[in-house]
Amino acid sequence: MIRVGIIGATGYAGGELVRILTGHKDAEIIWYGSRSYVDQKYADVYRNMFQIVDAACMDDNMEELASRVDVIFTATPQGLCASLVNEEILSKTKIIDLSADFRLKDVHVYEEWYKIEHKAPQYIDEAVYGLCEVNREDVKKARLVANPGCYTTCSILTAYPLAKEGLIDMGTLIIDAKSGTSGAGRGAKLPNLFCEVNENIKAYGVATHRHTPEIEEQLGYAAGEKVVLNFTPHLVPMNRGILATEYAKLTKDVSWEEVKAVYDKYYADEKFVRVLDRDVCPETKWVEGSNYVDIGFKIDPRTGRIVMMGAIDNLVKGAAGQAVQNMNLMFGLEESEGLELVPMFP
Amino acid sequence: MIRVGIIGATGYAGGELVRILTGHKDAEIIWYGSRSYVDQKYADVYRNMFQIVDAACMDDNMEELASRVDVIFTATPQGLCASLVNEEILSKTKIIDLSADFRLKDVHVYEEWYKIEHKAPQYIDEAVYGLCEVNREDVKKARLVANPGCYTTCSILTAYPLAKEGLIDMGTLIIDAKSGTSGAGRGAKLPNLFCEVNENIKAYGVATHRHTPEIEEQLGYAAGEKVVLNFTPHLVPMNRGILATEYAKLTKDVSWEEVKAVYDKYYADEKFVRVLDRDVCPETKWVEGSNYVDIGFKIDPRTGRIVMMGAIDNLVKGAAGQAVQNMNLMFGLEESEGLELVPMFP
Amino acid sequence: MIRVGIIGATGYAGGELVRILTGHKDAEIIWYGSRSYVDQKYADVYRNMFQIVDAACMDDNMEELASRVDVIFTATPQGLCASLVNEEILSKTKIIDLSADFRLKDVHVYEEWYKIEHKAPQYIDEAVYGLCEVNREDVKKARLVANPGCYTTCSILTAYPLAKEGLIDMGTLIIDAKSGTSGAGRGAKLPNLFCEVNENIKAYGVATHRHTPEIEEQLGYAAGEKVVLNFTPHLVPMNRGILATEYAKLTKDVSWEEVKAVYDKYYADEKFVRVLDRDVCPETKWVEGSNYVDIGFKIDPRTGRIVMMGAIDNLVKGAAGQAVQNMNLMFGLEESEGLELVPMFP
Amino acid sequence: MIRVGIIGATGYAGGELVRILTGHKDAEIIWYGSRSYVDQKYADVYRNMFQIVDAACMDDNMEELASRVDVIFTATPQGLCASLVNEEILSKTKIIDLSADFRLKDVHVYEEWYKIEHKAPQYIDEAVYGLCEVNREDVKKARLVANPGCYTTCSILTAYPLAKEGLIDMGTLIIDAKSGTSGAGRGAKLPNLFCEVNENIKAYGVATHRHTPEIEEQLGYAAGEKVVLNFTPHLVPMNRGILATEYAKLTKDVSWEEVKAVYDKYYADEKFVRVLDRDVCPETKWVEGSNYVDIGFKIDPRTGRIVMMGAIDNLVKGAAGQAVQNMNLMFGLEESEGLELVPMFP
Repeated sequence: MIRVGIIGATGYAGGELVRILTGHKDAEIIWYGSRSYVDQKYADVYRNMFQIVDAACMDDNMEELASRVDVIFTATPQGLCASLVNEEILSKTKIIDLSADFRLKDVHVYEEWYKIEHKAPQYIDEAVYGLCEVNREDVKKARLVANPGCYTTCSILTAYPLAKEGLIDMGTLIIDAKSGTSGAGRGAKLPNLFCEVNENIKAYGVATHRHTPEIEEQLGYAAGEKVVLNFTPHLVPMNRGILATEYAKLTKDVSWEEVKAVYDKYYADEKFVRVLDRDVCPETKWVEGSNYVDIGFKIDPRTGRIVMMGAIDNLVKGAAGQAVQNMNLMFGLEESEGLELVPMFP
Repeated sequence: MIRVGIIGATGYAGGELVRILTGHKDAEIIWYGSRSYVDQKYADVYRNMFQIVDAACMDDNMEELASRVDVIFTATPQGLCASLVNEEILSKTKIIDLSADFRLKDVHVYEEWYKIEHKAPQYIDEAVYGLCEVNREDVKKARLVANPGCYTTCSILTAYPLAKEGLIDMGTLIIDAKSGTSGAGRGAKLPNLFCEVNENIKAYGVATHRHTPEIEEQLGYAAGEKVVLNFTPHLVPMNRGILATEYAKLTKDVSWEEVKAVYDKYYADEKFVRVLDRDVCPETKWVEGSNYVDIGFKIDPRTGRIVMMGAIDNLVKGAAGQAVQNMNLMFGLEESEGLELVPMFP
Repeated sequence: MIRVGIIGATGYAGGELVRILTGHKDAEIIWYGSRSYVDQKYADVYRNMFQIVDAACMDDNMEELASRVDVIFTATPQGLCASLVNEEILSKTKIIDLSADFRLKDVHVYEEWYKIEHKAPQYIDEAVYGLCEVNREDVKKARLVANPGCYTTCSILTAYPLAKEGLIDMGTLIIDAKSGTSGAGRGAKLPNLFCEVNENIKAYGVATHRHTPEIEEQLGYAAGEKVVLNFTPHLVPMNRGILATEYAKLTKDVSWEEVKAVYDKYYADEKFVRVLDRDVCPETKWVEGSNYVDIGFKIDPRTGRIVMMGAIDNLVKGAAGQAVQNMNLMFGLEESEGLELVPMFP
Repeated sequence: MIRVGIIGATGYAGGELVRILTGHKDAEIIWYGSRSYVDQKYADVYRNMFQIVDAACMDDNMEELASRVDVIFTATPQGLCASLVNEEILSKTKIIDLSADFRLKDVHVYEEWYKIEHKAPQYIDEAVYGLCEVNREDVKKARLVANPGCYTTCSILTAYPLAKEGLIDMGTLIIDAKSGTSGAGRGAKLPNLFCEVNENIKAYGVATHRHTPEIEEQLGYAAGEKVVLNFTPHLVPMNRGILATEYAKLTKDVSWEEVKAVYDKYYADEKFVRVLDRDVCPETKWVEGSNYVDIGFKIDPRTGRIVMMGAIDNLVKGAAGQAVQNMNLMFGLEESEGLELVPMFP
């Protein structure tokens, strides 16, 4: 039984880790870390867990935690994991960091986009970017996994095969993404109040959102060239789900079948990536509560562009589900253990 | 492996049966019945099931079905199950009917409230009302189970212990219930359009809703007297969830602890009933996607009334989940098999 | 032109006052008071007002304000108006208080339910309870109007004629109310976050909600007896709207027509009260954005009860609209001036 | 008083026409046409209009209508207006067609995208494309106005000044649009059911949506060149509102101020176009219920692109509001008469 500690267990991503791990037959949560709710019963914070989780919340003492668990999930704000991690901790336990601290390989890019100093740059190289479908083998050997961002997971996987195979002109790539509100976290902030979000849609962080360099870096690896793109997130009045609509010029004349074959080359054996049938557009509702990424695409012969669309549940494949998928890989378990979550509709 | 057939697999309750049974280790769906979508791939109707369910929809030939499955779920409009069931079918297979056909013991009450003739009154006596927490032993032996309605399940379980113990004056009982829109089914009707439901709340079926006699009958058995009550359903702009708020005069002066003890007497060992802590009001979101019933109550010394509140997911404990719970009982399985669904929040 | 000052102009009710008064031909807002946003442009707080309102927010200096305006609206938390009002102010200007400070005639009841000391009990007697349809003549002469609460307005008007005419047994009256989330205000509180409210319904303040004594007092005046009742508010995932479902035993055998005649006796000439046709249940969406109260009812011969239903827009008839209606009365204007708001659907 | 007839008065756009015209001091609706509800009271179809509109629905006899009204609004499916219009009708009355019949100047493009034969191509030339801010002078003289589509209005106005001034490379323009569900109409269709739309987002009509050629044609006029672009609509779980996010390469190095000046050149005197302050992104909620178009933009120096964003209420500026604005122009009224609608928030 893998002993699990969670730091940040009372955020939405932390709560989703608890939901998923509760159904994982080889893992047991023994530390529900939450600085804000120390000593309060976890089930008093998330009442869905009443009579399911009996534990109280603990502080975020990573040193102590390291000696008690096999893996630590940090579902915390940027900077926290980097400020706590050290060699002793990493010698005792594995870390899966759901924050952005170890996602970007260039510390300057991190500091520029996140406006904070990186406190543990010495681990950036070692950290494995935990996009399982792309870095599976590296994840298996990792001590420290940087779990990808929600927008990032969706945006990258939707375009990855085409970028990898040179089918799209990376200089023309535009990603227009739409997210449910749980992506904004559980902080009590005015813009996230029901009345502000409901019956409303808006773009935000235009040309400045922090997931941009992460997408650029990873798609750059795939394409084998530096990628600079436009990424625009939008806030949608729903709890869960991200839809990424991506536009790029095709580098050659291809049919639907040819593009499908490229997707299949990379994803045919991927349990959690579903490339949809012709003319089917992904909907976030079809993946809700599950670890799936649904991908569809349409070639527009009029403009020579392809429109790629990807949908995920931001809290599952975009956060907690992928983190558990990484854990499974790191511990040699069946990759889908605990993740056989059937999407819930409606 | 229990072979399962579903008639009405493409309604919302049918779809939920598929979701739940897909995760059930001892059951296998071999017949996805749907008159409207015969020969279409099930996953084309419910795309959340893409790459999970490979089968196509079948018609509702109950005769043939009976010879191929161990249990038939009928998630169909009123009247259909009663029009198809016969001795030969019941000799070959068990039936769990999610419609109202066999819920009411008095055929005249059925015909009066549902405005249709009952085609198989000879099975009404045999049919067991499948409210597992109340009729568990009878369910275990049943061939034909009448799965309770969604409003009904919530309304009855919320008041049951107090009715049974004579703690409330049944003549004063008023049930004000609120339901998500999936309860209205997947039919393309104008009042269920997004723009008609969203940003709106209304009562409907006031003093005439068909779940009324079902609630009255069952609470009448509990109280040992004829019960006549007001039941008012409301349509709420959400997909899932029922909240019942119930008012009654207390028959004696009792404390919170005493009432809690009465609830515990009936529910302490019930896995799927969670009686909440003092001053905690149930929220539908805390049970979403799960088979739980959450119950809270408040004594109002000013009026001498108790306000009881119960919350369920109408598609799970209010339909498909309870149906699977009944199946588990009928086949001697662990009652919670396939139903260890952790509520999804947010 | 009536010069208007608003204290608390950046709450939801304050914002609605601005929306309504912007379309009022005889009133002009000259003071947008908002302690939290002093010196910020009002249109930066409510961007719907961009290029419509040019003013910046002011503090809540009621003394100065009194010398500059003809009427002050206080859309502020409980206690503020009472702590600021004095004879000098009232000699210079009229006050319409949207808080609860002057709604209850018994200061002890106020202090018991609101848990704060009343700072200006000397004005309680003078203050007129501004339910225009009931107290129209008194409002016309008032210096200080206590604008009714949102739940209260809806709850009272729905039952008022029947209470007044002795048609219902007041000891059996139960009010089950459902409100949109704007009623909870614009404060950044966790329970009001989108993800906590959306796809959820709950009761709150059961047996303790502060609008209870207000409803009891006013319906007590109508019935000519002390009234004690159950009032249960619920939070609904929508921005606007209150629906009150009210249950009471009829004191005699009456037909729908007879009850309708009683409603008509009081409301036939009321522009803002619409008594619906037989079997039509009010929906909050049909009054959204308007000052209407829609009322429907159903007699249940089985139980001897009547189910009354009322719907309002909580920010209009439940707050700002009624406040403007009171202002119109106080200044001798057409009562509906600025309130000819056609409900917006969908 | 302008006598108005509406054909299609019971669709959502028709309903909005009624709402707006009810508050218009110089117009009076004398014909509520609705083939589906002939002889039913209009207020029974739209109960928000109870006690406001007393009329019953009429059929769509355009001949008779023409002799009784000064202007006919056709808020009907494609093809209807073209099949009914003729010289006699146009000699007696003006027509504002909210369908697509006369929006496209090339009948072949119309027939190709709409898959129907055009029944009155002889009026295409005469018809004025009723985008008031662009074609004001022509609208004033028109007998037949083609009221622009909802997506179109938003998409065009957002980019128009930059297209006109050659600031963007039209070959790179991509429009990613998001719409509330009222845009899908009031037909009882499964994909528009509450449970299908709520908690969901999807793209649809990718590379094939019928508003594409309309946007291309109009922006082509502005740019003085043939324009071919990608337009992708998305369905958002909200009733009202369209947000268009538009991407294009800048043709030269410009500052925010310079782009703002270009917008101001065209819109500074436009009452209904609000160009927002720097770094403010439009939100559909800020224009809800009003005739405003809110526009914001962000220059991305990293990619050399500009991201333009526009928000409208699809039923107002995207349909009924603009239609009334056209009517005002055609009859020499104040352009904003009846349209001084303050956006409703929340």
